[in-house]
Amino acid sequence: MAIVHNETSTGVTCRVADVRKAIDRASHPCLFMVDTISSLASIDYFHDEWGVDVTVGCSQKGLMLPPGLGLNAISAKALSVAKTARMPKSYWDWEPMLSTNKVGFFPYTPPTNLLYGLKESLKMLREEGLKNVFARHARHAEATRQAVQGWGLELNCANPEECSSSLTAVRMPPGHDADAFRKVVLERFNMSLGNGLGKVQGKLFRIGHLGDFNDLMLAGTLSGVEMGLGIAGVPYTKGGIMAALKYLGQK
Amino acid sequence: MAIVHNETSTGVTCRVADVRKAIDRASHPCLFMVDTISSLASIDYFHDEWGVDVTVGCSQKGLMLPPGLGLNAISAKALSVAKTARMPKSYWDWEPMLSTNKVGFFPYTPPTNLLYGLKESLKMLREEGLKNVFARHARHAEATRQAVQGWGLELNCANPEECSSSLTAVRMPPGHDADAFRKVVLERFNMSLGNGLGKVQGKLFRIGHLGDFNDLMLAGTLSGVEMGLGIAGVPYTKGGIMAALKYLGQK
Amino acid sequence: MAIVHNETSTGVTCRVADVRKAIDRASHPCLFMVDTISSLASIDYFHDEWGVDVTVGCSQKGLMLPPGLGLNAISAKALSVAKTARMPKSYWDWEPMLSTNKVGFFPYTPPTNLLYGLKESLKMLREEGLKNVFARHARHAEATRQAVQGWGLELNCANPEECSSSLTAVRMPPGHDADAFRKVVLERFNMSLGNGLGKVQGKLFRIGHLGDFNDLMLAGTLSGVEMGLGIAGVPYTKGGIMAALKYLGQK
Amino acid sequence: MAIVHNETSTGVTCRVADVRKAIDRASHPCLFMVDTISSLASIDYFHDEWGVDVTVGCSQKGLMLPPGLGLNAISAKALSVAKTARMPKSYWDWEPMLSTNKVGFFPYTPPTNLLYGLKESLKMLREEGLKNVFARHARHAEATRQAVQGWGLELNCANPEECSSSLTAVRMPPGHDADAFRKVVLERFNMSLGNGLGKVQGKLFRIGHLGDFNDLMLAGTLSGVEMGLGIAGVPYTKGGIMAALKYLGQK
Repeated sequence: MAIVHNETSTGVTCRVADVRKAIDRASHPCLFMVDTISSLASIDYFHDEWGVDVTVGCSQKGLMLPPGLGLNAISAKALSVAKTARMPKSYWDWEPMLSTNKVGFFPYTPPTNLLYGLKESLKMLREEGLKNVFARHARHAEATRQAVQGWGLELNCANPEECSSSLTAVRMPPGHDADAFRKVVLERFNMSLGNGLGKVQGKLFRIGHLGDFNDLMLAGTLSGVEMGLGIAGVPYTKGGIMAALKYLGQK
Repeated sequence: MAIVHNETSTGVTCRVADVRKAIDRASHPCLFMVDTISSLASIDYFHDEWGVDVTVGCSQKGLMLPPGLGLNAISAKALSVAKTARMPKSYWDWEPMLSTNKVGFFPYTPPTNLLYGLKESLKMLREEGLKNVFARHARHAEATRQAVQGWGLELNCANPEECSSSLTAVRMPPGHDADAFRKVVLERFNMSLGNGLGKVQGKLFRIGHLGDFNDLMLAGTLSGVEMGLGIAGVPYTKGGIMAALKYLGQK
Repeated sequence: MAIVHNETSTGVTCRVADVRKAIDRASHPCLFMVDTISSLASIDYFHDEWGVDVTVGCSQKGLMLPPGLGLNAISAKALSVAKTARMPKSYWDWEPMLSTNKVGFFPYTPPTNLLYGLKESLKMLREEGLKNVFARHARHAEATRQAVQGWGLELNCANPEECSSSLTAVRMPPGHDADAFRKVVLERFNMSLGNGLGKVQGKLFRIGHLGDFNDLMLAGTLSGVEMGLGIAGVPYTKGGIMAALKYLGQK
Repeated sequence: MAIVHNETSTGVTCRVADVRKAIDRASHPCLFMVDTISSLASIDYFHDEWGVDVTVGCSQKGLMLPPGLGLNAISAKALSVAKTARMPKSYWDWEPMLSTNKVGFFPYTPPTNLLYGLKESLKMLREEGLKNVFARHARHAEATRQAVQGWGLELNCANPEECSSSLTAVRMPPGHDADAFRKVVLERFNMSLGNGLGKVQGKLFRIGHLGDFNDLMLAGTLSGVEMGLGIAGVPYTKGGIMAALKYLGQK
């Protein structure tokens, strides 16, 4: 069973613990793998408590680094299964990494530059405090949703409890092309909004608010969306940014 | 006669050409020196046309570099006067720099790192086009003034024709301390606003909008001011940011 | 048929064109794949002329970048075979990369930082001239061999025509541990020499001389080896470094 | 009384304490100023113990940073004299710096980038240990002198006790131009040796060995000098580098 903790393309966060419970209720022996690419270090996550067997993460989102590091957390069960599995594997073979890491080495050329970067980004996260990091992402997500509501636009995530803290996907009003709108924002304001993927292409755009990000960067981001809506001729209610500022600027 | 082209502490731009005319009308033989620290590469300037004898500039504002470079433009008259002047000088002695520069050297340790940086920042300015650079600064200054007017606050620069394109000084309502407000903005939003200097200390704050700066960075900046006014309990009209966005987001 | 152009672990360069001829003589339909990890941009290479189907390279050797980029050159034959091949593949599936590259995109998160770096390293290689780059590597390899001969040590590569231009593997005298020697050099001189891999572990050490490297860096490197031999008590003839300098310092 | 602790142009270190004693013996009331530009953090120095009134240092030598920081240590006597002195001063006026530093500020734009760099370089110096840093510079200077002696060339500093630990000035044999030799080394090996200044121009060259520097960098440097002497046709004894390696490579 493989799921995504935070769905980058839709802005929806999965209830990982509930999926684990469903696997258990069915007494299914499958391994449980979770992709935390766009949630690691932005949204709280519990590999052990949630009974995940394989968690994959990366360097280029919440860890605030360039792409290049893939991080795996592996349960005892997964390690044990891997030893007896007979499917051919190389890229997914953990053994060479585990055995060489123990003595301070890598089985092949290590991205030393990114490991130094990781040391620094972990230091930054600890300085802010993980609890504060997660709270910051949640605040920015709520402020973004307040802005979206203020504009009279629709969130892509229908269930409020499952809205992502690291990005917000916004549906375009029918008859308006999200990609044309994104192009306007890119050209006028040098800001690259995420696009709709697959069957929602052109139907939604995505606002990222994760990693090395603060209130005024979000305010700038939402200002770009608000101005872009006007320039692109998308029908919206002015002042969504004011709703976000009201929320962010509480005493 | 020494004046400042763009007064960093008050947000006022001097009419350099008019000062030159006044000197000429008085047939005064003085040298005319202009400080362009906070205007060079942000507000158009004409050393030769305006008859300036010594123009001083720096690396850390419009040229978008760390501090460390001082730049001098010198008229033939100033060079000639310097040769016969008998006041002791070392720091202000241009001759060693001029003679060694001719053969590709510096009279002492050159800040090579900043010279490489200068090469790059000049390239960036040329890519954007100096005309566009100046227009961008003027737009950001106008958007800032629209926001200030929207908040019902008073600009420090009384004469609209002399308002600076690189920073805007805003007067605090009587009875409110600009430095207490600045402290709120720094602590809550990690944004450092300029303070009032000398006799206007505590009575005004300054918003910088120069150098490597774009519309959304300005929108973030003005959002921080708007939220800070609310948090600090300064009386203001909400929505100044909307006036700025209206101006910046014109089709 | 998969071979390595430049064998990093032994310091031997393969005669790729001859391998191709052997495949052709046998009229074998196999694809021909060559690994240029430690030769690309250091030793001349001809993907098309040599009839290679798949060439793999990387960013972290001759291209002077951090690790993170894998580069593939693919023949028309290989592309065609890949289309009809029915083995499951994802990591080795070229199609998503080829189709998105055409329109200026990546099928997943691109290492933008390394692409900027690649732009710069290609510029540097062109400024020096590829012919000069290859000649420089050949000179440094020859100087290193002169030093090894001067020390009375044995090259690992028996055939002079196949000696690598990017690294030189040196055999330790019997009874002496190459890894103990390498440890001395690392601790005393902060220089990390390559180790012997697999069945030559402890029996040879490797001197890298590729990428962003010049005569005096090589002289420093060889000086570290010469001093390390003495400190580690390895029997050697003093003055190998003099042989290298004689070669490098020719008028 | 103003002296230079380490004379960059001659490679001679002054006996600062002895100069202080001479001033005291003469009961002269003068302030004692010492320039430590090329010695600070490379050669041990005692502002207080040696009774210096004003010590000036910089960022770009032993502190391993770009140029841009000037550092002053000031005695109580100097501070007191400055308060009553009536000579006009601005650049040398310490008061604005002292009073603003107390409250965490600078009287003008601070080179924040260099202050971050200074924090890091001080950390590096403490990690190595100042005693070890000074010993390393002394070792490199001695190795360099061994090489110079090996080449049969003459040191510029006649008194062995006053030889600088941060650079070594070498006299050219009569009839040979030091600058022609330096040009050869620069063009062939991309290494810039210091030139003779003033009346020794063309008569000596200088080898720097300070700051972020280690044994193999020195070996590369001396190799460049040895090869350059041969290419430039300067009469010398081969193998000076071997004398340096013998000294550096002691067990």
